[in-house]
Amino acid sequence: MTGVFPPSMSTVVALDVGGTTMKGLIARPDGQLVTAGRWPTPREDGPDAVVEAVLNAADDLVASAGDRVDAVGLVVPGFVDEQRGVATYSENIRWRDVPLRRLVAERTGLPVAFGHDVRSCGLAERALGAAREARDALVLPIGTGISGAMFVAGRQVRNPYAGEIGHLPVCGDEPCACGATGCLEAIASGAAIARRYGRATGRRVRGAAQVVSALRQGDEVAARVWAEAIAALADALTIYIGLLAPELIVLGGGVSLAGSTLLEPLREQVRRRLSWQPEPRLALAELGEHGAGAGAALLARGLLTRDLDRPA
Amino acid sequence: MTGVFPPSMSTVVALDVGGTTMKGLIARPDGQLVTAGRWPTPREDGPDAVVEAVLNAADDLVASAGDRVDAVGLVVPGFVDEQRGVATYSENIRWRDVPLRRLVAERTGLPVAFGHDVRSCGLAERALGAAREARDALVLPIGTGISGAMFVAGRQVRNPYAGEIGHLPVCGDEPCACGATGCLEAIASGAAIARRYGRATGRRVRGAAQVVSALRQGDEVAARVWAEAIAALADALTIYIGLLAPELIVLGGGVSLAGSTLLEPLREQVRRRLSWQPEPRLALAELGEHGAGAGAALLARGLLTRDLDRPA
Repeated sequence: MTGVFPPSMSTVVALDVGGTTMKGLIARPDGQLVTAGRWPTPREDGPDAVVEAVLNAADDLVASAGDRVDAVGLVVPGFVDEQRGVATYSENIRWRDVPLRRLVAERTGLPVAFGHDVRSCGLAERALGAAREARDALVLPIGTGISGAMFVAGRQVRNPYAGEIGHLPVCGDEPCACGATGCLEAIASGAAIARRYGRATGRRVRGAAQVVSALRQGDEVAARVWAEAIAALADALTIYIGLLAPELIVLGGGVSLAGSTLLEPLREQVRRRLSWQPEPRLALAELGEHGAGAGAALLARGLLTRDLDRPA
Repeated sequence: MTGVFPPSMSTVVALDVGGTTMKGLIARPDGQLVTAGRWPTPREDGPDAVVEAVLNAADDLVASAGDRVDAVGLVVPGFVDEQRGVATYSENIRWRDVPLRRLVAERTGLPVAFGHDVRSCGLAERALGAAREARDALVLPIGTGISGAMFVAGRQVRNPYAGEIGHLPVCGDEPCACGATGCLEAIASGAAIARRYGRATGRRVRGAAQVVSALRQGDEVAARVWAEAIAALADALTIYIGLLAPELIVLGGGVSLAGSTLLEPLREQVRRRLSWQPEPRLALAELGEHGAGAGAALLARGLLTRDLDRPA
């Protein structure tokens, strides 16, 4: 990704820690944003192993950037305390209260900006991607799980417990990992779409992309599983629209790679559910799988700008 | 209500236009907030008659305040364009695009602050009532209809289409005035509680208060209708909590006069539905039926303060 960022005086690196993979980026002074490494997240080996892997990946990333690196941006999933720089909890990784900002700063000797993967993705889409200039918007990465980055009256909602759109009840009886039934995530996440299609066909399914591909070849079971996911998404978005009346909803994450196969029926289903509410624009994310990383790089740059602008 | 407001240099009057009644208040320099008139809202006579009644009530109110009045606060239901001072639409009153701020200013010769009844009620509860100092809060008047005043990160959400909690789907099959089925408002508003109890008993029911009174005397039908309303409210609040994670929810409007008969089972039902989400405090509104009017008086005072602080 060339020239994604505006030019700057600094080089920063960004690490996006996911449940399966950690992805690295380097943001150069000329605005180039370069992919720089992918490491498995060893969550089967327990939370301590993941913390060690994060520290090693941060080291690798700084080394691979070559010349001087000025700051690190780090984003992680789950509940995040941005103020204290602590990863509070992640259901996937099972860590609790890990002071990651301090640990990465100690390991790399660099200033570290720390944030939440989904809010970071929202930040990047709003600064550089599909949500530019939106005042009231939802950026919704649909991946293994589903949660949203919310913008209200031009400001990002930073409450760490807000945006849990994946657990909105959409009246199904599918059990969810959270203990409830009928959560959006149990029907419409990438993992759920793959699981439900696998269960209905008895096939081994690698991911939602395989379901989309089957659907495009006329597979009726794939069409049904997909339609159920779309209907559940439309129900959840209608709830969001009734409460927050966004002008724009940006769909991201792996499932959004389905493009118009996602966007067109979803837009139609949402339209059908609205009455007095103004219809928001629906759009696809522009930063692809690097939204959270790009946001982490922005956070790292922000750290430096803030240091320059407002010396303590 | 004595000494509700802080002292000030000015006297303002406030008019809260409801679907059934218009209520007047006078806010004196010493902080006294005095009820000053009640007029029927002649909505059966059409929107023009209501506009005329609003202008007459504003005149009466200014006259009854006696000495010099410095400003008028006016709040109305439905969709409101605060910037332009226009009542955009009300389902109850059936007016469309009425420039009420200008009309009342012309009639009274005074500066007029114009706002939305529910957001005004939220403003007052946050400034003076049960939501003081809350950063993330929902103020929810439950009356003929249900809609909420939302506070996110310390700021009130002013998007005129936001907060439509009364139309959250809570999985019932009760038809709603909006055309959908299963809306919260169709089960848990004061009007719905009265209507559902009347339908089940064949009795003529004046309002939700009568149902609460029957319930307290051991009436099983009243207990069932009330329990269904509580369950629907708990479902809707759980949706709100999942999206916005408020620290506080304030219940107001006529239905909240049921006090602990509302608050205790609702708190219990919400608690049962939460898992990872932090449980918000649930509290009753403190300004009773005068929340919206008190907010209108604050808006009118704000107009004067703003004029003094920041001369154009």
